[in-house]
Formats: sequence, structure tokens, C-alpha cells
Amino acid sequence: MAKDAHLTIGRAIDSAMATVGRGGQLLRSTLGLSGISGDRKHSRRVTPGELPGIDHIANILEPPAPGSVAISYTDYSATRIESGDIADLDEFLEKPVPDWVQVRWLNVSNLNPYVVNLFRHHYAFHTLAAEDVLHIPQRPRIEIFDDHIFVVLRMLQLVQHEVVDPLSDSSLDTEQVSLFLYDNVLITFQEKPGDVWQPIRDRLQNEGRRIRKSGTSYLLYALLDAVVDHCFPVLEKYGDVLEELEFITLENPSPQVLHRIHSVKRELALVRRIVWPMRELVDQLYREEGDRIEDSTRPYLRDVYEHTIQIVEIIESYREMASGLTDLYMSAMSNRMNEVMKVLTIIATIFIPLTFIAGVYGMNFQNMPELAWRWAYPALWVVFTLLTAGMLFFFKRKGWIGKT
Amino acid sequence: MAKDAHLTIGRAIDSAMATVGRGGQLLRSTLGLSGISGDRKHSRRVTPGELPGIDHIANILEPPAPGSVAISYTDYSATRIESGDIADLDEFLEKPVPDWVQVRWLNVSNLNPYVVNLFRHHYAFHTLAAEDVLHIPQRPRIEIFDDHIFVVLRMLQLVQHEVVDPLSDSSLDTEQVSLFLYDNVLITFQEKPGDVWQPIRDRLQNEGRRIRKSGTSYLLYALLDAVVDHCFPVLEKYGDVLEELEFITLENPSPQVLHRIHSVKRELALVRRIVWPMRELVDQLYREEGDRIEDSTRPYLRDVYEHTIQIVEIIESYREMASGLTDLYMSAMSNRMNEVMKVLTIIATIFIPLTFIAGVYGMNFQNMPELAWRWAYPALWVVFTLLTAGMLFFFKRKGWIGKT
Amino acid sequence: MAKDAHLTIGRAIDSAMATVGRGGQLLRSTLGLSGISGDRKHSRRVTPGELPGIDHIANILEPPAPGSVAISYTDYSATRIESGDIADLDEFLEKPVPDWVQVRWLNVSNLNPYVVNLFRHHYAFHTLAAEDVLHIPQRPRIEIFDDHIFVVLRMLQLVQHEVVDPLSDSSLDTEQVSLFLYDNVLITFQEKPGDVWQPIRDRLQNEGRRIRKSGTSYLLYALLDAVVDHCFPVLEKYGDVLEELEFITLENPSPQVLHRIHSVKRELALVRRIVWPMRELVDQLYREEGDRIEDSTRPYLRDVYEHTIQIVEIIESYREMASGLTDLYMSAMSNRMNEVMKVLTIIATIFIPLTFIAGVYGMNFQNMPELAWRWAYPALWVVFTLLTAGMLFFFKRKGWIGKT
Amino acid sequence: MAKDAHLTIGRAIDSAMATVGRGGQLLRSTLGLSGISGDRKHSRRVTPGELPGIDHIANILEPPAPGSVAISYTDYSATRIESGDIADLDEFLEKPVPDWVQVRWLNVSNLNPYVVNLFRHHYAFHTLAAEDVLHIPQRPRIEIFDDHIFVVLRMLQLVQHEVVDPLSDSSLDTEQVSLFLYDNVLITFQEKPGDVWQPIRDRLQNEGRRIRKSGTSYLLYALLDAVVDHCFPVLEKYGDVLEELEFITLENPSPQVLHRIHSVKRELALVRRIVWPMRELVDQLYREEGDRIEDSTRPYLRDVYEHTIQIVEIIESYREMASGLTDLYMSAMSNRMNEVMKVLTIIATIFIPLTFIAGVYGMNFQNMPELAWRWAYPALWVVFTLLTAGMLFFFKRKGWIGKT
Amino acid sequence: MAKDAHLTIGRAIDSAMATVGRGGQLLRSTLGLSGISGDRKHSRRVTPGELPGIDHIANILEPPAPGSVAISYTDYSATRIESGDIADLDEFLEKPVPDWVQVRWLNVSNLNPYVVNLFRHHYAFHTLAAEDVLHIPQRPRIEIFDDHIFVVLRMLQLVQHEVVDPLSDSSLDTEQVSLFLYDNVLITFQEKPGDVWQPIRDRLQNEGRRIRKSGTSYLLYALLDAVVDHCFPVLEKYGDVLEELEFITLENPSPQVLHRIHSVKRELALVRRIVWPMRELVDQLYREEGDRIEDSTRPYLRDVYEHTIQIVEIIESYREMASGLTDLYMSAMSNRMNEVMKVLTIIATIFIPLTFIAGVYGMNFQNMPELAWRWAYPALWVVFTLLTAGMLFFFKRKGWIGKT
Repeated sequence: MAKDAHLTIGRAIDSAMATVGRGGQLLRSTLGLSGISGDRKHSRRVTPGELPGIDHIANILEPPAPGSVAISYTDYSATRIESGDIADLDEFLEKPVPDWVQVRWLNVSNLNPYVVNLFRHHYAFHTLAAEDVLHIPQRPRIEIFDDHIFVVLRMLQLVQHEVVDPLSDSSLDTEQVSLFLYDNVLITFQEKPGDVWQPIRDRLQNEGRRIRKSGTSYLLYALLDAVVDHCFPVLEKYGDVLEELEFITLENPSPQVLHRIHSVKRELALVRRIVWPMRELVDQLYREEGDRIEDSTRPYLRDVYEHTIQIVEIIESYREMASGLTDLYMSAMSNRMNEVMKVLTIIATIFIPLTFIAGVYGMNFQNMPELAWRWAYPALWVVFTLLTAGMLFFFKRKGWIGKT
Repeated sequence: MAKDAHLTIGRAIDSAMATVGRGGQLLRSTLGLSGISGDRKHSRRVTPGELPGIDHIANILEPPAPGSVAISYTDYSATRIESGDIADLDEFLEKPVPDWVQVRWLNVSNLNPYVVNLFRHHYAFHTLAAEDVLHIPQRPRIEIFDDHIFVVLRMLQLVQHEVVDPLSDSSLDTEQVSLFLYDNVLITFQEKPGDVWQPIRDRLQNEGRRIRKSGTSYLLYALLDAVVDHCFPVLEKYGDVLEELEFITLENPSPQVLHRIHSVKRELALVRRIVWPMRELVDQLYREEGDRIEDSTRPYLRDVYEHTIQIVEIIESYREMASGLTDLYMSAMSNRMNEVMKVLTIIATIFIPLTFIAGVYGMNFQNMPELAWRWAYPALWVVFTLLTAGMLFFFKRKGWIGKT
Repeated sequence: MAKDAHLTIGRAIDSAMATVGRGGQLLRSTLGLSGISGDRKHSRRVTPGELPGIDHIANILEPPAPGSVAISYTDYSATRIESGDIADLDEFLEKPVPDWVQVRWLNVSNLNPYVVNLFRHHYAFHTLAAEDVLHIPQRPRIEIFDDHIFVVLRMLQLVQHEVVDPLSDSSLDTEQVSLFLYDNVLITFQEKPGDVWQPIRDRLQNEGRRIRKSGTSYLLYALLDAVVDHCFPVLEKYGDVLEELEFITLENPSPQVLHRIHSVKRELALVRRIVWPMRELVDQLYREEGDRIEDSTRPYLRDVYEHTIQIVEIIESYREMASGLTDLYMSAMSNRMNEVMKVLTIIATIFIPLTFIAGVYGMNFQNMPELAWRWAYPALWVVFTLLTAGMLFFFKRKGWIGKT
Repeated sequence: MAKDAHLTIGRAIDSAMATVGRGGQLLRSTLGLSGISGDRKHSRRVTPGELPGIDHIANILEPPAPGSVAISYTDYSATRIESGDIADLDEFLEKPVPDWVQVRWLNVSNLNPYVVNLFRHHYAFHTLAAEDVLHIPQRPRIEIFDDHIFVVLRMLQLVQHEVVDPLSDSSLDTEQVSLFLYDNVLITFQEKPGDVWQPIRDRLQNEGRRIRKSGTSYLLYALLDAVVDHCFPVLEKYGDVLEELEFITLENPSPQVLHRIHSVKRELALVRRIVWPMRELVDQLYREEGDRIEDSTRPYLRDVYEHTIQIVEIIESYREMASGLTDLYMSAMSNRMNEVMKVLTIIATIFIPLTFIAGVYGMNFQNMPELAWRWAYPALWVVFTLLTAGMLFFFKRKGWIGKT
Repeated sequence: MAKDAHLTIGRAIDSAMATVGRGGQLLRSTLGLSGISGDRKHSRRVTPGELPGIDHIANILEPPAPGSVAISYTDYSATRIESGDIADLDEFLEKPVPDWVQVRWLNVSNLNPYVVNLFRHHYAFHTLAAEDVLHIPQRPRIEIFDDHIFVVLRMLQLVQHEVVDPLSDSSLDTEQVSLFLYDNVLITFQEKPGDVWQPIRDRLQNEGRRIRKSGTSYLLYALLDAVVDHCFPVLEKYGDVLEELEFITLENPSPQVLHRIHSVKRELALVRRIVWPMRELVDQLYREEGDRIEDSTRPYLRDVYEHTIQIVEIIESYREMASGLTDLYMSAMSNRMNEVMKVLTIIATIFIPLTFIAGVYGMNFQNMPELAWRWAYPALWVVFTLLTAGMLFFFKRKGWIGKT
């Protein structure tokens, strides 16, 4: 019961994430990355050879429908904090930043060319960076510009379902996050509403926290840290699934198990492709010279770096484990075949000679003296019994009987 | 239906590209690269030890037949643009470049020793570079000279057919492109007519575009970008084919599937061999010091570089996926064998003992008391039935019946 | 007998270490590392996105229950030594260090937030380091701060049981150790009571020893050396187990052997994941400039470094050996199948034709002249014998009989 | 026909090159490299621990038999060229080099200690270099001395046979070449007579050629280039063989194919071991500072370097292809086994039940009412037919019949 | 005959070297390295955490039994040489070195703590180096100290037996050698008596030799060179064994062959683990700055370095070859299985239908008109013959008969 639960969690991850696809397909790219899921079609400009940058995008001058894009601001200093939603972005950006504000965090949920373009004009970031915000998926990376740092991330999030059925109690959600770090401003663009940063928002409300006393780089750290930390529960899920698969492979292997292992391997490869560049990214940020990253923040970034290494190592060991499971499965299969063959061989080698003997005395020759002997028939049964016993003894000695 | 379509697309790629070869061959090098296709014979001088450079080439002093080589020019500045075909190359090269021209783009379709030699004399590029323009295929690479940069590329292009049959709706076309970047001039040599640069020509006509305001390095970037971008649709095709192959492997594996997987693996290895040096090339261009690459162009080159990395990563993940499919196929095969063996074993182990018993009572001994018993025959049928039921129960418990 | 003993030692390692887990599971993560054992749940903060550092930990201001944490001190110089348990830590830390003390070693067994926090305030180490002391498991590593060095280690220890049964005479114990090296003070935090450092404590009592004449860095070396040296007996155990498995694979392979090999492989991967970063760590310590590491200590650190390399190489060769065993096992399996098939084939191909002949003369045709011949029946037996001999000769020539 | 030809070419390469060896051996090291062929015995001094250098060699003071060593000279400048064989080496070396000579190329065919020693004394090269000239095979490498450069190469040459039989129209010849580059002199030692440099000798006769106007380094380049270029036809042979093997694997796999693939793999590994250090060597020569390598020669060396990279890449892709073929072969084998099993199973499962029924009515019970029924026998044939039809339908549905 | 000889040489290597071990074990670590042989127990201090250095060793103050340790000296200059055994080491070390001595070589056979300690005190080398001399096996390496260089090596030696039986004509002997290089003194410690340096001792007697005119570094080179050169005959042995195994695998594979391949693979891995660090060691020595290594010796060291690279490459190619043999073996096995299955299938599918027909006419129905027909019985034999012929034709077409 419990094992079924575990196994199906994994399958639930699959199916819940598969937004585009044919029903009959058993294996599925989990993460919507540039693997082979339908999503990959958006990973590049629509037409090769098209204009770079965002200026040419069709609806760039068309403001989004009200409510389709949520923009919020959080202004804070050590002693004061203000936050809220921004209704009129143009007006908001025009207003000067109040003097008391140490750090301004602007967060945009849902991507919209018009909004990104407004930000681009106000904060003067590169047209290609703006393009990368809009074109998903991007490879996680960092770009250092003269007056700002541009970071692209991928956020993994395990969404809990409210279903009681343990088979589908959670699914994996992935979205792209782009961050622009200026001296006093941090802008974050999220692909979809919903994020993993609620604990940070809560912490910001608390006056005594270090985050309130530090600059934008510490805020950046906190956001990164939350994103990286959210990889651990995802890995735990995979750990559970692998543990289940190992159990099933040993107890009761079936082709489905192998498909499942294959699928886990592929998904882990995708997760690694997300995490690996994040490791580089954090390291680059940690080593970035200049004062945009405060020195007091560096040990924290190093801590995040250690976590990314740990994640990569866990993924690697899971991948090795999955490979080992494939070997185990294959050997279990050949073991089963062996067992089938043994049964066949035992039955056949015992009865084929007996059948031959019976056939001999079923012949109709006129001159077969044995047929007339009085004890011939009972004697034959003795022969049958002895032959069978001899065969069984032979198989026993070969180890085909009595051991599994 | 849909799956057949997908699968055959891949096969169509194969067959459409195979220009030289025996009909009965199932696997074929797709890209005409130095793999094992007939093309490789041209990858080096005809006779080893021959003279390097192009001076010795037989027909170097013989002008090409009219119309066999198409040479076009595009002169432009921010405010003015002129373009056209060049009929008399000698005369054209002699004429001084008009003062208003910021960038001159000379494009040559079809390779001809005479034409390349004319360019070589006028623009003074190295005889070995000229040789590399003519000898295909070359490994993509960049060479920095004092007053110019020489770039060799390979252009992948998915050609759409006008056939309705989904099995052959597209094929892969590959050609070598050589570029010479001077301060104000960019010369491009294409192996064959037809290219992926039409959108750039269109963009050049548009006065407001950044490309009109920038120098030759931006033009170079735009051409590179178009070439790299055209790899994505090719990869998408392979993604579709792999998805189909996965589906078939799970549903209905046949040896053909394995041949297909083998073929995809090999083709991906070839594509990687094209893209991998292009990654290095773009990186080297990006890092090239000196002012031939304008600083404003560098972020764009970096963007291209990111794309090449993304392509390489996608290829790697496709290759891993293909390897995984091989394992799946192998296990499907051994699974089938298992199933065959089980059927044989079940039938044989049920009937062999029964046949033996029937044989016993077919014996002609004079003294077999059972033969005279009244209920012996019906009783034997009861025995037969019980034996069969026992066997079936045994197989059921072994899990050979009732589970697939 | 001896081989059983060896094999079961390994199994005992497994089972003894498995503190959390389902009974029916055959393979088990040995080391409680971030593999797939239940322990991994503690390798990160409880809630992703939580506050970094230790200030927020719930019971940080709550002193531990008396006796739950053992803190001891050892003050020594070349001529004098004093050691004992610390009852009131606060008071002890307040007292100035006596003038004669060259090196003070403070050792804490069992982790407690309150105690760690006290130390942190007194010795001013970073809040993230304090967090890493408490959150286990950490990846072994070193961090250099301005006035101290922070080292995280993992101690492997083979615990001897007092049972006579050779199957369970030892188990593997693993715990995290954190060290803070100051100019005159070395603080060590152990996850659990019990350690591998008793020989060093004994050595400290001996006035003539080099350890008494050297500074804290030599003490650090001695502790590191003891930890690294304790990996060798663990490896020896695995060597014994592998030797046993090799013997069994050759003599009497069973699926359990493969599970065991799989399990050893996985455990070695985990041990490697512990030792590998320790190699880096010791190297970094050896190369650390500045005078916290005395020059006379460096050759000793280099010696430890050589040992870690040796351990890594032994692990690698064990892993290769385990892979080789998998191949051997697979071939043994297919060999067995071969043997089974041969037996079946020999029996079947000998008797099936004979049975056919017997069947022929069991037919009831009225006109079968042979039936009336006088020597027909004995002649048939001659035929049977010749046929069988011919078959046996054929099998002999094929090498199916008489060779194993 | 054509395919047989191709396949046997490869086999011919094997056998023609195998100069030492047992006849019955199927696989053979092709290149006489330090692999496992008999040649390897000469790759080191005869007795380990013997004197280094050549002074101790037994016949070092004994001039070679006339005609056993061919020494030729080529003196040239831009305007004049003289060449010929050297009869009396001692006398020749004593004579001063004429003033007009820009470059002197001395070529020695067949290795002889006396001759090498004479050169060594006149040109003062190191005793170890002289030893390496004589002890073959050496690893290709370059050594830079104060006044000269020492290069060891391995020359691959496809020798065309005059036989009409396509099975043996060519074989691979390999020999070691050592070069000493001085300011105005280039000395080349060849292991055997016959080389790939005839085109260069021809070119030298031609006054207008660049080679006549350049120094020794250009001559060195030309010789290197010829050696590297001669690898391409060898690779083409392997490409043809692989293409053939692929065809055979798909059409008609037999164990011989696998042996052949194995053999190609091994030979490619040997070719790679020759080419790989040549790549390094050319690169080192290209980067060699100082004026022994003229700057105008460097682009040419770079061109050779590109060729070596291309060769290595082709070898790698051939090796991957060979691995893929092994997989294909294995799957073809298991596919065949499947087919065999299916035939057996179909026949057995159809007839075993029928035979049982026939056996039942062959029993001799006195009370078997069916025996007396009038239509029993024809009815039984109906049963037989229905049973068979049912089985066939079952196999059809399983996909065992009607699909290959 | 010849092949048996070869094969058994390898097996003899195994068994002759196995000094500790259970008789029934088939695979054995050849080299007594820290693999899994009994030797590994000495690779570390007896008790983990024990004192580093040698001062604490129990019998360090106890002089060795007379004759158990052989110490010899060789004093030489260009013009004079003296050598002999040292009876009283203490006295010898006290005596000043005569003025005429350029190089003193002290050689110790058999390790003894007392002797090593005496040397240590006189030549002031590090206590850890002294420990490494005594604790075997150490990883080959070099350590540079201020006034001396410490080198640890492993000497491989093929010992010829005087037995005529080709199966055991040689075995592999391995011992650790430690060298201390001072300005005028070279001290060598050998684990066991007997070495590979006799040719060097002979050479030293010869006044004209370079070794007599050079310093200690040339002597060190000569010793290193002898050790490295002695690896080649060992590799040749493995080459012969592999050639034999290849032959057997192709001709007559048996499980023992696979065990043997497995064993060769493992032994090669061990040899590589010995040679690999020796490569580094020689390179480090070659690059060592300062005048302890004379400049005239450097080219010789580079020559040794080339040899170590060659050895490593040969080992790698042997390992690849062994892997290829495993594949060949596996395919040979599956091929055999195929053959077995074919025989079974041919026999069964021919006779099972015939037996059925015979069974039909053995039925006892009263109304079977065929039984009374006159030619029924001969006609049936025609049917039998036709059926058999049909089957044989079918198998022929399938390629199961007539091809192997």
C-alpha cells in the first residue's frame, strides 16, 4: 500500500506537469525544459533570423489587460517599510524614490512585453536582457553590466494538492525568474504568479532582522537562497521514488518499473541541467568584485554555493543509483527467464524418457515377450519411479531444485 | 497515424540527404560531413602531398561560365542603401568604394577558384584561407589576421518540401559558409545558392534598424545569429523523432526501431561535431580584442554564444535519451522472449505429463488390471483435469499467468 | 564457514546502521548520508526560505538538560597539563586563560543550540558556521576567516560488537565533527559521544611528546590524522566483503550476490563522497598561508594528504572491482542458462526421435509387415541404441558433453 | 559483390601487415605498433638497465654493407638546385657546404648505427636522440634543443598492390621518421626505403615554387604536411569497411562480423595513438618561439594542425560508430534467438495438445464409449482443426506470426 | 601447445605471487598492492591514531640480527672506485668520507627500524620519511626537502624460474624502494634482497663510462631508468596473455577465459596504479629547479619520462583490449546459446508433428477407414518424408542449417 503510494507520487509528478501532450504516452519530460516537451518551441525567437531585442515585438506598445500583470513594490530601510501593489506603473516609475528608502524591491508576476519595456526604458537595461526576460526557457546565468547585474534563474516548486489520494498529492512547478540588481533597487520578473518568497516577505516586516539592515545584495541573496532551498524537497521526492523503485525491483520487477526508472533518470538529467548553471551563477556572484555585493553578504552567498554543490552531488548519486537499478532489473529479468527455463527443463527431461518407454510398450509387434510377462507392468512402474527419482536427484545436485 | 508521420519524417531526412549511395542501405550519414558518406572524399586535397594554397589549382585562371556563380553586393550607411548583382567582378573590384558607404557586403554563391582568386588578390587574404574556402568540408573555426578575420561556418537548414505526404515534408540541407571581415567590408562565400539570410536582407532595407547604424561586426553578428538560430528547428525535428521512437519502443518495439535509434544517435553526433566548434568560434570572436569587433556588438555575440551552449546541451540530452531508448528496447526484447518462453513452458509442462499418462494406458501389456476397471476411463479424465488445474495454480502463483 | 562470516559482516554493517527503515528492504544506505536514508531530511533547514544563521532557532536560549552535553577542556604546555569536564560553561569561558597554557582544547559532545551559541558569542565565529555545526550532514570543507579557521569533517568509525556471532561483529558509525582553530584554542564539536581520539588524549599526557611542544595546528593535525586513519579499517572491511563476493560469484552465484554487489557499490560511492572533499580540505589546510599553521606542522599535513589520496585510489579500485563482479555475475547467469538449455536439448533431441519411432509401430494399420517379423522388436532396440549413441557422439563433438 | 570487396579490403589490410604471427589467429594488430604484435619487443633496449645512448651499440663502428643504406642530399636556393646520392658519407660531411646553398636536405633510408653515429658527431645531436632514431617504435614527439629541433613521426602509407583481386588491393605500411632541423640543414632518417615525399621532391625542382624561396622550416612543414595528409586515405578505407560492416550487420549478421568490428575498433585505437601525439607535436612546433620557425611558415603549420584535429575527430566518430555497430549486432543476435524461440514455441504449443488427445484415444481401456461412436474419428479431426486455428489466431494476436 | 604455454604463464604469475590466501580462490590480486590481497593490512600504522614518525616503534633501539640486513657502499670518482659491505654501520657513518670520493651510494636491503633510524640521525631526514620507508606499500612519490630529495618507488621484476614446465616459468615480484638524494650521497632502501640494478653496478666498474664522470643525480637517473625499463617485460607478458586469451575466446570460449580476462583487467589496473604516480614523480624530478639535478642529467630524465608515458599508454590499450575481449566472450556465449536453441528447435519441430500423426493412427477408434487401406502405411512414410524435407528446406532458407 505504502509502496504504491510512493510510486504513484512520481507518476503524479509526471502527469500533473504534462500540460501539452498525447494521452497514450507513458514517459514524459517532467520539467517543461528544452527537453522534448512541447514547451521547447518557445525557447527561441519564433522565426530564425528575426530581429534581436524586444523593440520589434508586436504588442510592445499595447498595455496589458488590467489584472493580467501584478506589480508590487516593497520599500524599506532599517526603521521603516512600505509595500503595496502598483496600479499605474508609468506614474510610479516617474515619482522619485523617497529619501528614507534604502532598498526598493519591485516584483512583476506574469510576463508582458509592454511592462518589461517600460522598466527597460526607466532602468536602462539592455534590449537583449529584456528579450531574455520574455523568451523562456533561458539557461540560468548571470551577466554583469556597468551599473547593474542581470540574473536568470529557474525556480522549482513542489505544489501540494488538496487531494487525499496519496498518488497525486503533489506536482512539480517550474518557472523562470529574472532579476536586475541596481544599487538601491532590485527588480524581479516572474513567469507566473505564485512564488517561494513568502517567508522573505514576512521576514521583511520584522524590524530587527538583518535583512532590514542590509542592502540590495542581501535581499538578492535571500531570494536566491529560497530558490535553491526549494530544490531539496524536490530531491527528497525523487529519493523516495527511487527507494520505492529499488524495493519493487527486488521484490516484483515488471517492465513498468524499468520505464519508471528510465523516466526518473531523464527527469534527474533535466533537474541537473537547471541546477548546474545555478552553481556557476552563484559562484560568479560570490566572486564578483566591486561594491554592488556587500562584503557582509559574501559568506551568505558562499553558503548558497555550498548548497548548490550538495544538490548537484545528490543528483549525481541518484543518477548512479538509477543506473544501478537498471542493472538490477536486467538481472532480475534474466533470473526469471532462468527460472522459467528450469521448470520447463525439469518437466520435459523427466517425462520425455518416460513417455518414450510407454511408447515402446504401446507398439504392436507380434513378438514382444515382455508384454506377456506377469510382473512386467508393475515392474515398469518401478522403473518409472526410479528414473524420476534419479532425475530429481540430478537436478537437486545441479542446484535447480530447492534453491531459488 | 500521427506517430507514423513523425517517424517517417526522420527517415525522410535521411533519404533526401543521401545523394550518393547504395539503395539497399538502411542507415546513412545524414549531413554529408566527414562521417562515412561519399562526401568525405573531398575533405582534403586530391593527392596527399600536393601543393598547399590555391595557386596550383587547374582552372584557376579560367573564368566561370556565365551564371554559374552569383555575386551580389550591398552597400549601405545609416541613410542610404544600394544593392545589386555584380556582372563583371574585376571591374567592380577596381572601382573605388563610394564615400558614403559605411559597410559593403559582398556575397558569393557557388564556389569557383577563379572568383576566389580574384578576391584573394584584391583583398590580400592568405592562400591557405582561399584554399579552405574551396575545399569542403572544413571544421568550423576562426582565424585572426592582422587586417581581417576569417571565419568558416556550416549552415544547417531545414528545407520544406511541397509534398503533402507527411513522410517527406522536409529534409536537411547543409553547406559551408566562409566569411572575411575587414574594416568596412564583409565578404561571404557560400557553397550553394540559397541561404538563411533573407530576413537580414529585408532588415537592411529598413532605415531605422540598428543594423544600418552599426558597422561590419554587427552585420557579421547578424549573419552568425541567423545560422545558429536555424539549428533550433533541426533539433526540434530530432526531438519529435525521439518522442515518436520512445512511444514506439514502449508500445511496439521492432528491430527497425533500434536501427532508427542508432541512426538518430549517429546523426546527432554529426550535428554536435558541427555545433561544438561553432561554440568555440563565437566565444573567440566575442573575446577578440581590438576594434574590429565594436563594443556595442559584443553583448549580441554573447547572446549567440548562449544559444550555441543551449544547442550543445540539447544535443547532449538527446543523445542521453537515445541511449536510454536503446536500453528500453533491449529490455523490451528480453521481455518478449520471456513471454514466449512462458507460453511454451506453460503448454509443455501441462501436456507432457498428461501425454505420458495416456501413453501408459496405451501399452499393450496383457496384465494391466486398470484397463478392465469400469470407471477407469472417466476417473482418468478427472486426474487429467486435476493435474491441469494444479499446474495452472502453480503458474498463477509464480505470476506467469494473469499478469503481463 | 569463513566465507559466510565475511559476507555477513557486510550485511551486518548494513543492518546495524539502518536506524530508520522498513524491515523488508534488502538494500540499504549504509552511512546515513544524504543518500536515500531517512537522515537526509535533516540536511537542510526545516522550512525552505527560513532565516539563515542560528539566532532564530527555537530553543537557543534554553540551556540543555544537565548531562545531555559533555564539555571537556585540556590545557597544556610543554611542561604542564590539566584537563577535566566543564560543568558551568558560562563561568568557564569568563575566566581568563591561565598564563602557562600554550594550547587549550575544548571538546563538546552532542550538539546543542544553547551551547553552540555560547561559544559563538565568546569566540565570535560566524552565525552561518554555527548553523553548519548544528545542521547535519554538511559536506566536509574548510573556511578561512580572519582570526580563525573552520573545518567540518565526517568521522567514520568501525564499532566492534561484543557478540561472538561473526555475522554481526562490527558496524559502521558516522558522525559530523566541526573544528574551530584559533591561535591558542581549538574547539571541537562532535555530533555524538564517543570518538577516535583517545590515543591522542593518551599521548598528550606524555610530557616528551612532540604534541606537547607544538601549537594548536599540530593538535589539529593529530585529530585530522586520527580521523583519516580510521578510514582504512573500514576499507579493509569492504575489501574482505569484495573478496568474499568474488569467491561466491565464481563458485555459486545467486541473485542475492548481485544485490550485495549493488549495495557495496552504493556504499562505496557514499564513502567516496565523504572522503573526496576531505582530500581537498587537507590540501587547502596544507597550502594555507599565514602562521596559524606552523611550518613544522606542514610535512605532517602533507602526510595526511597522501593518506587521503591513497584512500580515494583504493575506493576507486574497489568500485572498478565491483563493476567487474557485476559482469562476472551476469556471465555466470548466462552460463547457467546455457547449461540448462543444453540439458533440455540433449534429453529432448535424443528421445523425441525415439518416441516418434515407437509411435510409428504403435499405429494400428492392418498392413504393417514389420510387425510380423520375428526379429523386428530386438532390431528396433538396436536402432534405438545406435541413434542414441549417434546423438551423444554429436553432442560430444559439439562440446556439450564432458566439458563444463 | 561490391560489399564483399569492401569487407575483404579490410581483412587484407590485416593479413598483409601481419608479418610475424600464427596462422590460425583471426584478429591481428594492424599497425605493428606497441600493441600486441611481435614488433613491440623492439620498443626498448634489449636488456633493461643497459647503457643509455648509442655509444655502447655493438656494431657502431662497423660501416654498413654497401647499398644497405641509401643517403641522398638535396641542396637548393631560390635559383639553383642540386641533388644526388651520397656514396662516401664521411667525405661528404667534411666538405664545406657551398655558399649558394640556402637549404640542405639530407635523407637517410634504412637505419644503421654507424651512419647515425657519423651524423651525430658531425651535427652534435644528443646521444639519446640518436638512440631514439634507432630504437623503434617511439612515441611521436618533438624536442627543442639549443641549436636544433628533433622530431619523431610515424608515417602511415596505403600501399596499392598490383593484384586484380579486390580482396587484397591495398595494405597499410607504417614506418618511423626522425627529423633534425638546423638553421640551414634538415636531416631525415627513415626506417625503411620508400616514402610519401616524392611530390615534394618534384616540387623542389620547380624554380617558381614557394618552397624554393623559403627556409628549412618550410621544408619541414612540407614533409609534415605530406605525412599528415596520407592519413586521410587510410581513414577512408576504414570508413568504407565500417559502411560495409554496418550493411552486413543489418542484413546478415554473423559472429565474423563482430570479430571484424572488434578488430576495426582495435586498429582505430592504434591509429589514434599515432595521430594524437602528432597533433600535440605540430601544435608545439607552431608555438615554438625563436626564429628557427619562420613567421611565414606558421600559418602553414596551423593548417597542418587543423588537419590533425580533423583526423582525430574522424577517428573518434568511427570509434563511436563501431561501438554502435556492436550494439546493433548484439540486438540482431537476440532478435534471431527470439525468432528461433518463436518457431519452436509455435510448433510445440500447437502439436503437444493434439498429440495428447491422440494419445488418449490410443489407450486400451475396455470401457471407452467414444471409440465405438460412428463419427468420433471425423469429429476428432474437426477438434484438431479448431484447436490449431485457435492457436494460430492466438499467435497472430500476439504478433508472433505475420510480422518479422 | 604454444597457446597453453602462454595462457598458463599468466596463471603462473598469479599463483606464484599469491603468498597469502585460500587455495580455492581462482582470482587473485597479482601484485600484493593495496588492492585486496593480504598485504594491504600493512599499508598503514597498526593502530589508527598512533604516533606519527618512527620514534615510537618498539624495536627501534634493538640492532638487527647479524646478517638479516645487508648494507653495502660504493664510493667512486672518475678515476677511482671502492665498494664493499658494511659490517658496523655506526662506525662507518662516523668515519669521514674520503676526499677523493665524488659520489657515495649506500644501499640497504631488508628494512629494519634500527638501521633506518641510524641513517635518519646521521643524514637528518624527516621522521615521516623514515616512517614511509618502513611502512609498505606507499604510493610512489617525490618529496623535495631543503638539502635532500626523497623518492619512493615500486620495483616490478619478472623472476625467471628454473622449472622446465612452461606453465610456471616466471612470476612477478614487487618491492618498495626508497631513495634519499644528497649532494654527494645517494641512499637506497630496498624492501627485499635482490634487485634490478646489477647492470649499473657493472657499469660503475668501467672507468670510461659517463656514470663515473657524473654526479649523484645521474646515478639516481640510472637507478630510476632500470626500474622503469623493467616494466616492459612485464607488459610483454600481459600482451602475450591477452593475445592467447583472444585466440581462445575466438576458438573455444569457456567461463574460465572470462575469469582470466577479469583477472588480467584487475592486475593491469594495479600496475597502472603503480606506474601512474611514477610518471608524475619523474616529471617533477625533471622540472626540479636547483642544482641537485645536474643540467646534463635532465635530458636523460626526460627520456625516462617518455618511457613512463609509453608504459601508461600500453596499459591503457591493454585495458581497452581486455574490455573488448569481454564483449567478444559475451557474444560468443550468446552465439552458443543460439546454436543450442537451433538444434533443439530443428529436432523438435521436425519430430513433434510426425509423432502427432503416428499418434493419430495409434488411436483405437473402431471406425477409422484409413487403417484398412492397403497402401496407407507406405503412403504415410511418404508423408513423413515430405514433411521432414519441407521442414529442412524451411530451416535452410532461414539460414539455420548449413551456416555456422
